[in-house]
Amino acid sequence: MRADARDNRRRILDAARHAFADRGRDVPLAAIARRAGVGTATVYRHFPSRRDLVTAVVAHQMEGCLRHLADGLADPDAWRGFRTVIGTLSAEHATGHGVTADMVELCEADPEFDRHRKRAERDFAELVRRAKATGRLRADFTRDDLTLLLMTSSGITAASPEAAVAASRRLTGMLLQSLQSDAPLPPPAPLGPYHVRGGSDVR
Amino acid sequence: MRADARDNRRRILDAARHAFADRGRDVPLAAIARRAGVGTATVYRHFPSRRDLVTAVVAHQMEGCLRHLADGLADPDAWRGFRTVIGTLSAEHATGHGVTADMVELCEADPEFDRHRKRAERDFAELVRRAKATGRLRADFTRDDLTLLLMTSSGITAASPEAAVAASRRLTGMLLQSLQSDAPLPPPAPLGPYHVRGGSDVR
Repeated sequence: MRADARDNRRRILDAARHAFADRGRDVPLAAIARRAGVGTATVYRHFPSRRDLVTAVVAHQMEGCLRHLADGLADPDAWRGFRTVIGTLSAEHATGHGVTADMVELCEADPEFDRHRKRAERDFAELVRRAKATGRLRADFTRDDLTLLLMTSSGITAASPEAAVAASRRLTGMLLQSLQSDAPLPPPAPLGPYHVRGGSDVR
Repeated sequence: MRADARDNRRRILDAARHAFADRGRDVPLAAIARRAGVGTATVYRHFPSRRDLVTAVVAHQMEGCLRHLADGLADPDAWRGFRTVIGTLSAEHATGHGVTADMVELCEADPEFDRHRKRAERDFAELVRRAKATGRLRADFTRDDLTLLLMTSSGITAASPEAAVAASRRLTGMLLQSLQSDAPLPPPAPLGPYHVRGGSDVR
């Protein structure tokens, strides 16, 4: 791929991520093209169908998430590794990196998505197992708690990405305090497979 | 107003609240009518303009909020009063009671809205002042933290209202643990006037 084509592809993916987060997965492709500063034909050339575009956006985010998980697992201090992953994913979700249920739905048939998702689940479970073994992470932390944390960060909106990240830091700071306490909490709530609030809820 | 007209009005307000939360303040009135199980003409009879409908939905939520604040202030245990208000408002936001920036915008010119908002700000400041005086609420809790708490709850989505409320209880439990600790936290983030993520962010 030529450098300018690669640039366009990256710009389209970035514009699509924001547009999906704001308006759901059915946002007009023309709006995405406008946001990316390219023509609609260029969008179609890179992504012949909406499913291709959604799948590429989700794959891009999934790769980022897997990289963060690998970094966290590589940290010799397991509690610090866990904290870093939660902080990084929360900050990204506060700036519109979340994947909504209706986006996940469009990816279900993609074998690569399935492979990546299973690997993310496995890595996250291992990160949690190690963090609990240090005695710092509360014993009743569940997979649903991770979804809850990411959903809550995706609810943040602010005048600038910087303010959104600052709000996510404050929020994560509060949550991590509780996660390392053993004071009793209401039980984890069943939230089902990972997704954040957004397009999925647009009926 | 006759009993059936009152029922219709209540049903329209409830349908509008959900529709605004899901699709923004510009959702077609026909979709609201359908959700309420009434004809579009009935919506127009009760609310001649979109602004009337948005203003009525916001006023309804504001009245509920003022009632919760009054209940909290009436509690002789100020820390319990504070906790109850946060818990109730969070549960409501988890089930779609939030007001988005674009809804607030449509109400700015309404003198009653302005009066109610000022009263809510005053009551909330008093609730915080008393909770801090008990020594239970951390000294650096700010007005922006309340917006943050409500934004995070509005990010929750679940298969049922019951699961959403359970998730909000777990989240609030975590946050209240940190709010009564004096362990250092990242500083509060400027989030501006109260609103939750939603229609406002739909561009």
